Amino acid sequence: MTSGALLKELRQTNPLVQCITNYVAMNIAANVLLAAGASPAMVSDAEEAGEFAGLAHALTVNIGTLSGPFVEGMRAAIAGAQAAGKPWVLDPVACQATGLRRRVSAELLARQPTVVRGNASEILSLAGETSRGQGVDGRDGVEVAEAAARALARQTGGVVAVTGAVDFVTDGSRAVRIGGGSPWMPLNTALGCSLTCLCGAYVGLGGDPFEATVAALSHYAVAGSHAHEGATGPGSFAPRFLDALHNLAPEALDAGAELRVLEDAA
Amino acid sequence: MTSGALLKELRQTNPLVQCITNYVAMNIAANVLLAAGASPAMVSDAEEAGEFAGLAHALTVNIGTLSGPFVEGMRAAIAGAQAAGKPWVLDPVACQATGLRRRVSAELLARQPTVVRGNASEILSLAGETSRGQGVDGRDGVEVAEAAARALARQTGGVVAVTGAVDFVTDGSRAVRIGGGSPWMPLNTALGCSLTCLCGAYVGLGGDPFEATVAALSHYAVAGSHAHEGATGPGSFAPRFLDALHNLAPEALDAGAELRVLEDAA
Amino acid sequence: MTSGALLKELRQTNPLVQCITNYVAMNIAANVLLAAGASPAMVSDAEEAGEFAGLAHALTVNIGTLSGPFVEGMRAAIAGAQAAGKPWVLDPVACQATGLRRRVSAELLARQPTVVRGNASEILSLAGETSRGQGVDGRDGVEVAEAAARALARQTGGVVAVTGAVDFVTDGSRAVRIGGGSPWMPLNTALGCSLTCLCGAYVGLGGDPFEATVAALSHYAVAGSHAHEGATGPGSFAPRFLDALHNLAPEALDAGAELRVLEDAA
Repeated sequence: MTSGALLKELRQTNPLVQCITNYVAMNIAANVLLAAGASPAMVSDAEEAGEFAGLAHALTVNIGTLSGPFVEGMRAAIAGAQAAGKPWVLDPVACQATGLRRRVSAELLARQPTVVRGNASEILSLAGETSRGQGVDGRDGVEVAEAAARALARQTGGVVAVTGAVDFVTDGSRAVRIGGGSPWMPLNTALGCSLTCLCGAYVGLGGDPFEATVAALSHYAVAGSHAHEGATGPGSFAPRFLDALHNLAPEALDAGAELRVLEDAA
Repeated sequence: MTSGALLKELRQTNPLVQCITNYVAMNIAANVLLAAGASPAMVSDAEEAGEFAGLAHALTVNIGTLSGPFVEGMRAAIAGAQAAGKPWVLDPVACQATGLRRRVSAELLARQPTVVRGNASEILSLAGETSRGQGVDGRDGVEVAEAAARALARQTGGVVAVTGAVDFVTDGSRAVRIGGGSPWMPLNTALGCSLTCLCGAYVGLGGDPFEATVAALSHYAVAGSHAHEGATGPGSFAPRFLDALHNLAPEALDAGAELRVLEDAA
Repeated sequence: MTSGALLKELRQTNPLVQCITNYVAMNIAANVLLAAGASPAMVSDAEEAGEFAGLAHALTVNIGTLSGPFVEGMRAAIAGAQAAGKPWVLDPVACQATGLRRRVSAELLARQPTVVRGNASEILSLAGETSRGQGVDGRDGVEVAEAAARALARQTGGVVAVTGAVDFVTDGSRAVRIGGGSPWMPLNTALGCSLTCLCGAYVGLGGDPFEATVAALSHYAVAGSHAHEGATGPGSFAPRFLDALHNLAPEALDAGAELRVLEDAA
């Protein structure tokens, strides 16, 4: 299916996405999902996270503001999602930065996420390579993480997306680069985290996770390009971006997506 | 008193509202209160929540991102508010979704909130009826919850507000429908949660809770209508809405409120 | 160094600032840092906060939404920052309001923050004087807290900044008043908290903390004045402010800063 067809399906289905995300991202991630056509629910407490995962179309897990209770909630939610046959997406924020993050991200990766989305520094680190990342900002270019992403996808059996100026998506055999977006995007906090949630919305439709991830990233990139027009800084970009996510027509998504297919083993 | 008179009083009093709300809502709820003319304080830890409730004009309690520590803070805060004779408002977010939410919302309801504000799915669920809600989005129309709202108001002895395309407010005898607002409002996350906080600001003035709730919902709806003009999506709506909450004159509130009084037993 | 020279250095260095801040502030504080030219990381859990402080250029600690786990994280992070020779900034939000806040703010103050930034009510309270503050909003004018700020600076050996309509910065000997800004700023929640984080970014450059604090406050005030033009309320101010923080040129900062040097013992 084309990304445009998936966008149309997203708006008809209005998938419920359970987001365990960090405190910085919660508001903007919910607004991104609502604008795009999905329904967010930030449910993370271990006492209800597993139960709720059975109700949702997909789960997303983000380690941005990590703590013991969050990790317990992540475990419960992933178990619930897997028991119910629902896809889940991992966002390994700054997984290279501390011992806690390295430990938790390795544990979560072993639970075989349907999709991993991170910046190049995070994907390199998850794949066991050295990154130059500081804090939560990646310092590595996407291209240096492409081989690591392929290896990681073969390891998890899922999709890996590396996002940056040009995004890269692979399932270990197929691979695509996606251009577009805006230089104001990395100056808006948690837009990467929010994109992870949008990947959850698309994979929650139940189709091919590779196509779903490409659709989510393309929707984001085309909307980012549209929002860039007329913006005069990161602040004026933000409301334009939500408008553009909402107003993007399926045909405009297919026409505007800057895709470059690298390989197709399918 | 008219809603306009209450708005004028709100801006003179600048009531301090203690908000125990969810992580998604905290920032926008605070901005809504500041724009409207009140003073927010997000104080939820059990160690200080009860003490703080004695300082505030009103308390609001929202179960959106529930957890054990939040519940302990809610209990302490409600006890503190009631000991000090301060009103409190309950927002039973997605109370139908999980066992934890059903249990906590029932416990809080039994503590007799001055006002309950929810969407139709939540009010139906609180009243013991079946709802079609998924996640945090209501799927039921406000009109199907009017009887449940009346029953609930008689049970708590307080006010119940059901919000949606057209709002409904009742204290068990009096009832009113409130039109206006904008279709962009449900696409902005946590605007319902923020409205709960604004109800707290108006009931914190100490007058009739029914009139206060009508004023809060009318202020919101008229500001929403004003903000709709010129907005091109949910993103551009948001800053316009805060401007409109701030700039709405008391006379314009009374002139613009789309009220339909259904019964008046007073 | 002039504030403009420090702004230039900020954008070249892109300092990593570890922010332990409240849930209301996390998103806007991160966006303020990104717009200004720094790199935020909200890392607060005790298990990793001390380790992370060794990676960051500076630490900021804010008690806005206080709880036991937050306090443990603050202690670990401050210890880590001090062990690594990194500066740290304290924001004593509403420290006069409850017993918990008075106790925690006194404990943190004893750990000798490089900079304390608060409103007049908070600085008066920290200095042991009586304030008229309610909740998180200061009710005292900056000028009534100038003597308290000087005394506090001598006590901690660091810098104290009192912010309001006109800001005041002192290190106990030097002192300056800074005008500018916009009346929409106090109607945008957590802009004070975000300014604390920006102080962290400037002191993280490693130079004189007094000059760094003056630069942070001047950057904020000039950007606020620029953003005020064309804004029609607190909502439309917010995106303009982020744009202005980003777009402010070093020369325009030096030309636009409304500084009044009161004393210079250096």
